[in-house]
Amino acid sequence: MKTLNLNLGEKSYPIYIGQNLLSLGELLTQHIHGRQVMIVTNTTVAPLYLQKIKTLLTDFAVAQTILPDGEKYKTLASMNLIFDALLTAKFDRSCTLIALGGGVVGDITGFAASIYQRGVDFIQIPTTLLSQVDSSVGGKTGVNHPLGKNMIGSFYQPKCVLIDVDLLDTLDSKQYCAGMAEVIKYGLLANIEFLHFLQDNIHSLINRDKTLLISSVYQCCQDKAHIVAQDELETGKRALLNLGHTFAHAIENTLGYGVYLHGEAVAVGMLMAAELSQLEGYLSLDEVNQIRILIKKSNLPITINSKIRKSAFKQAMSVDKKAIGGNIRLVLLRKLGAAFVSSDYQPKLLDQIINKFCQGEDYDR
Amino acid sequence: MKTLNLNLGEKSYPIYIGQNLLSLGELLTQHIHGRQVMIVTNTTVAPLYLQKIKTLLTDFAVAQTILPDGEKYKTLASMNLIFDALLTAKFDRSCTLIALGGGVVGDITGFAASIYQRGVDFIQIPTTLLSQVDSSVGGKTGVNHPLGKNMIGSFYQPKCVLIDVDLLDTLDSKQYCAGMAEVIKYGLLANIEFLHFLQDNIHSLINRDKTLLISSVYQCCQDKAHIVAQDELETGKRALLNLGHTFAHAIENTLGYGVYLHGEAVAVGMLMAAELSQLEGYLSLDEVNQIRILIKKSNLPITINSKIRKSAFKQAMSVDKKAIGGNIRLVLLRKLGAAFVSSDYQPKLLDQIINKFCQGEDYDR
Repeated sequence: MKTLNLNLGEKSYPIYIGQNLLSLGELLTQHIHGRQVMIVTNTTVAPLYLQKIKTLLTDFAVAQTILPDGEKYKTLASMNLIFDALLTAKFDRSCTLIALGGGVVGDITGFAASIYQRGVDFIQIPTTLLSQVDSSVGGKTGVNHPLGKNMIGSFYQPKCVLIDVDLLDTLDSKQYCAGMAEVIKYGLLANIEFLHFLQDNIHSLINRDKTLLISSVYQCCQDKAHIVAQDELETGKRALLNLGHTFAHAIENTLGYGVYLHGEAVAVGMLMAAELSQLEGYLSLDEVNQIRILIKKSNLPITINSKIRKSAFKQAMSVDKKAIGGNIRLVLLRKLGAAFVSSDYQPKLLDQIINKFCQGEDYDR
Repeated sequence: MKTLNLNLGEKSYPIYIGQNLLSLGELLTQHIHGRQVMIVTNTTVAPLYLQKIKTLLTDFAVAQTILPDGEKYKTLASMNLIFDALLTAKFDRSCTLIALGGGVVGDITGFAASIYQRGVDFIQIPTTLLSQVDSSVGGKTGVNHPLGKNMIGSFYQPKCVLIDVDLLDTLDSKQYCAGMAEVIKYGLLANIEFLHFLQDNIHSLINRDKTLLISSVYQCCQDKAHIVAQDELETGKRALLNLGHTFAHAIENTLGYGVYLHGEAVAVGMLMAAELSQLEGYLSLDEVNQIRILIKKSNLPITINSKIRKSAFKQAMSVDKKAIGGNIRLVLLRKLGAAFVSSDYQPKLLDQIINKFCQGEDYDR
């Protein structure tokens, strides 16, 4: 087992990464300070791992909330189910919430913990590759609004993150590959060595080689922890982690949540960001092609396979949180392994990218 | 105009107290850092003061949300109306929310600001006595849940609080007197001199003498700012501000929100706390009677005028946030002007108090 620390002063916490961690009860229980524990999970994960977690918690008063599975349930209404359960069980300010699931469960649970009785403890046990490498670390929590993704939420840090890669054994291929999009993101945005590692090992990683997987998850979490420690509230550098995400949110928003998995939308979004970076003169066509190949080898989409109205897409981009006073700020690539935030690009080139991708055309060069 | 500062490091902010402050545009606009301003108010306050505020904001993009008036609308659903308006207007992270109204508007707006796009600026312009002396200062925000009051919320500080006592001219007597309950609370919990001042001047204060009113509001805000600066997140001393509130929440919860105004419920709750303190041997019967007289002279209730089932009342108390692991912690009075938090009292004496008050009987000694 490897342990990373996210350094945030009093809010610092450990991230445990390894195999078979759910057999180590103490690892979890040392971070629970009260006697009441609410496990929040979903209908897919509950039959697989809920009982296993409960056996670690025999000394506690344990309740559970099982949410429906899927991004479309990442809503205030779902969160209210958690509050109903907490209040029915009379859980007080000393309780701990455990998020057992993917990004949706983690984001809702963290948000619920941040506002239940003005804040209670929570712990992340991510069960998807996407949540293990990205969403479980760093304290961004929230839910979607019909008019925009993650529009309602908070910055709220867990007491620990317990990443057991064995939990990925039960993850279907589509979900697994979607997670790989976020793994690739870390290589692209700040770590050229890791990008090369991924290019060399993508086949084995897609086949879930556990040793390579632990290294990769560790690398992503380390990079993320490093960035979050410098900019918890995303006033600066943390925005780099949104590489591909403004496009991805617009894809999800216009197609409807769930048509593309979040990671799939991020894959296309990163490619859109890379193509815009190429048009702006930062990347070469060859470099864009390297990204396209890596995404394709990860069984991820490189186009939007449904037609989207360009006006709707632009509308969706403009309400994204990354907008400042109406100008859309985007994360672009200065080169492979070096991202930067910019609103200083030619609007017509952004239009060109949107025109290309919103046709749903196949455009392999 | 008097200015108080709430000292919370980077989160510090000024509290302006005086008359005719809404004519000083700069006072407000110096605290608005973006170009987008959302005024949140209610159907009662909007016709009185909304236009006046808007004339101060001609240099900004201004939108508004007018909520229905009343504690029963302090819900997640009302908050969602604010999010709908913010997203429809495409307000981004640089926007500022202004709460123009009483405690309900302030609590909802502050909470909405704390979670819109993971946190935007907000400003409090309280229009009721209760919100001017208590709820607008200190950063407690939130909404009610059908199973408990203020169960969902956050600690989130405004950029400034603008307290114009002239706004109280339009407040009806019942609301005004309800606010006086929170004024009395400050005297009871930590300031014997202020309690004596209130005992001497309650008649003039109820008649809204402006000079006495400004002094009183200033005193309450100063006492509150002092306590909050020491314990923002209510891990200790801040709990003293809940004097009477655990009882009050149970009254509101069992009678249904709106039967008693919050301040009215607090008045009865403070008397219940005082009577329990007397049974526990801290206060004399005469001291309890002094409190009863002061409450009565403020045109506030000293009994619960509807019958409440004792079991329902106890049930409602037990889900109050102040409960820790099942034991109900209460704020009691060691003497007049000195409150303390305790779970070390005889349950049968608490039962005795609940029995007495839940009958709705008149019990002047």
